[in-house]
Amino acid sequence: MNIKRPTLIVDKAKVLKNIDRVVKKIKRSPQEIRFRPHFKTHQSEQVGEWFREKGVTSIAVSSVPMAEFFAEKGWADITIAVVVNILEIDDINRLAEKIQLNLLVDSKKMVQILEKKLAHPVDIWIKIDTGYHRTGIEWSFRKEILETAQAIHKAKKLTLAGLLTHSGHSYDANTNESIKLVYHDTVSKMQYIRDYLAQMGIEGVQISIGDTPSCSRIDSFFGIDEIRSGNFVYFDLMQLELGACREEEIAAAVACPVIASYPQRKEIVVLGGAVHLSVESLMASNHKKSFGIVALQDEATGTWDKSLPDTYVSSLSQEHGIIRTSLPYIQRFKIGDILMVLPVHSCLTANLLKDHTQFV
Amino acid sequence: MNIKRPTLIVDKAKVLKNIDRVVKKIKRSPQEIRFRPHFKTHQSEQVGEWFREKGVTSIAVSSVPMAEFFAEKGWADITIAVVVNILEIDDINRLAEKIQLNLLVDSKKMVQILEKKLAHPVDIWIKIDTGYHRTGIEWSFRKEILETAQAIHKAKKLTLAGLLTHSGHSYDANTNESIKLVYHDTVSKMQYIRDYLAQMGIEGVQISIGDTPSCSRIDSFFGIDEIRSGNFVYFDLMQLELGACREEEIAAAVACPVIASYPQRKEIVVLGGAVHLSVESLMASNHKKSFGIVALQDEATGTWDKSLPDTYVSSLSQEHGIIRTSLPYIQRFKIGDILMVLPVHSCLTANLLKDHTQFV
Repeated sequence: MNIKRPTLIVDKAKVLKNIDRVVKKIKRSPQEIRFRPHFKTHQSEQVGEWFREKGVTSIAVSSVPMAEFFAEKGWADITIAVVVNILEIDDINRLAEKIQLNLLVDSKKMVQILEKKLAHPVDIWIKIDTGYHRTGIEWSFRKEILETAQAIHKAKKLTLAGLLTHSGHSYDANTNESIKLVYHDTVSKMQYIRDYLAQMGIEGVQISIGDTPSCSRIDSFFGIDEIRSGNFVYFDLMQLELGACREEEIAAAVACPVIASYPQRKEIVVLGGAVHLSVESLMASNHKKSFGIVALQDEATGTWDKSLPDTYVSSLSQEHGIIRTSLPYIQRFKIGDILMVLPVHSCLTANLLKDHTQFV
Repeated sequence: MNIKRPTLIVDKAKVLKNIDRVVKKIKRSPQEIRFRPHFKTHQSEQVGEWFREKGVTSIAVSSVPMAEFFAEKGWADITIAVVVNILEIDDINRLAEKIQLNLLVDSKKMVQILEKKLAHPVDIWIKIDTGYHRTGIEWSFRKEILETAQAIHKAKKLTLAGLLTHSGHSYDANTNESIKLVYHDTVSKMQYIRDYLAQMGIEGVQISIGDTPSCSRIDSFFGIDEIRSGNFVYFDLMQLELGACREEEIAAAVACPVIASYPQRKEIVVLGGAVHLSVESLMASNHKKSFGIVALQDEATGTWDKSLPDTYVSSLSQEHGIIRTSLPYIQRFKIGDILMVLPVHSCLTANLLKDHTQFV
């Protein structure tokens, strides 16, 4: 391991297990479900290949440049899982010429704009808001959803794939039961709309769902056609706190060089700050803000062990992280040592370190 | 303006004024003070050139790669203003061969390691902790500071430049008076150490300070030899809240395409999320979390006007920003419009968008 500055270390064995678990669970479902993992978490050609080896051929991404990146790497069925940004129409047209491109809309108006500006056929998902209140047509607005579906049916270059939602409010659910409730609530709302559209003559509408907490806590999927979760590939402290994973399933950590040690403060300072980890935080066990927990690197393999007790990143600035710990560790860590920081939100950390990643 | 996705817009006229204000203030000082602006905020060759035009020749950066970047652009006197990460010694040696490189240490041990591993002479600043408690030798630890200074004097490749501190705790001071108190407190602690070192036979020790809030609120500098503030070049909402700038002095904002509109929620959604703005937040006037305030772009010039009342980024995910606003604005903003988001912490935003920046 030749690490000299903050580097995202991805544990291949854990990633493969994380992928395998979801692939197997989806295969166990009573009905056939398409697995379309969200690649925004890793944004990595290599991790993409590991998905491909498990039989995955459909993916979701969160931006047009990310779609371009994976299209170049041979992915031929890509959903840009953010409602269309019409200012990127030229790039969208170039992509739609090459691959099976799937876009999200949440208004009849956007359908009409797309029909006018698209140069090639695309599949369209209507984004539905089932409670997260980010984007999507509010699930109870039946008329608006119907009109959007009808407009897609009328449009020549647009084919209606189905209804898509992201139940991001599952991240606010803090018990196993409440996460499951979000899933059941989401599925029943989506089915309610599908049934309504069928009554109105629009058949064959698929349902796509996506958040990692639900997908991790549900044992058997039903009533849906597609799953787009993504974070499970690495997991992180947010998912750990939600109970969506165990610590040993977290597959990405940031290797940070120790640059200073302050025994009197019981603090170590590492190179590893907001530009490496992101400033996403949660509450540590002592009710103070935590920007990550800390483990030792296994020098032989490059992976890491169980996190150290009472040791966490208590503060971040642009390049520095301050680690609070106990005296025995202070004496053990030397300047130039590498400490592994398990991130709060792996998607943002992986985005910051996408050009500084090592696979072990 | 051909903006299709989140882009950092830098207002040249404002940047020049922000630079000019500090340059003039420093020139007005009763003693000669070296201005060594911190380039971590902008990380931009172009902005660097504007500093050069104002006579600046010395700069500070926060990482070795940033030093390499600016050394390539012709900057020949660079301080890496983070205590040395010894794992980067090969890169440090390459830099020290080419330019006047200045490094930070905060222990005698680091001096000894450097003396062994350095291939070329460097100037050394002893990092002092005057109250921020990030890095540096605690200012009252006279013996430790003296021993470090003596070790530098003994070392052949190391020349003692002086004492350097970053009073980042000025960011927690919330009145004009308390910010000034931090400055005065910092300077007197630094002078106390300098006087002590002089008594012990170590003369000619310079004092370098650096935080933007103090540098913005102090009318006349005294008792110091160098100023390294950086954020003032763009400012941001954090500095606005501290009273360190006025809104019209904020020189960087993120142009974000509107992708959705929800009149019933009084919300607009833009492409512009955590991977563009960073998740740094502060409290909005309604005591809710704010990730930015919003202004309209002047289409002719590409700059922006005064921020809109009661309009702010209330929530961020990886690529999305949700903007809370009032009904008249909801009706005015159309899909495909550009909204300008003034960032909470411009250093982190500029870092995320350094390859997606336009100067207007």
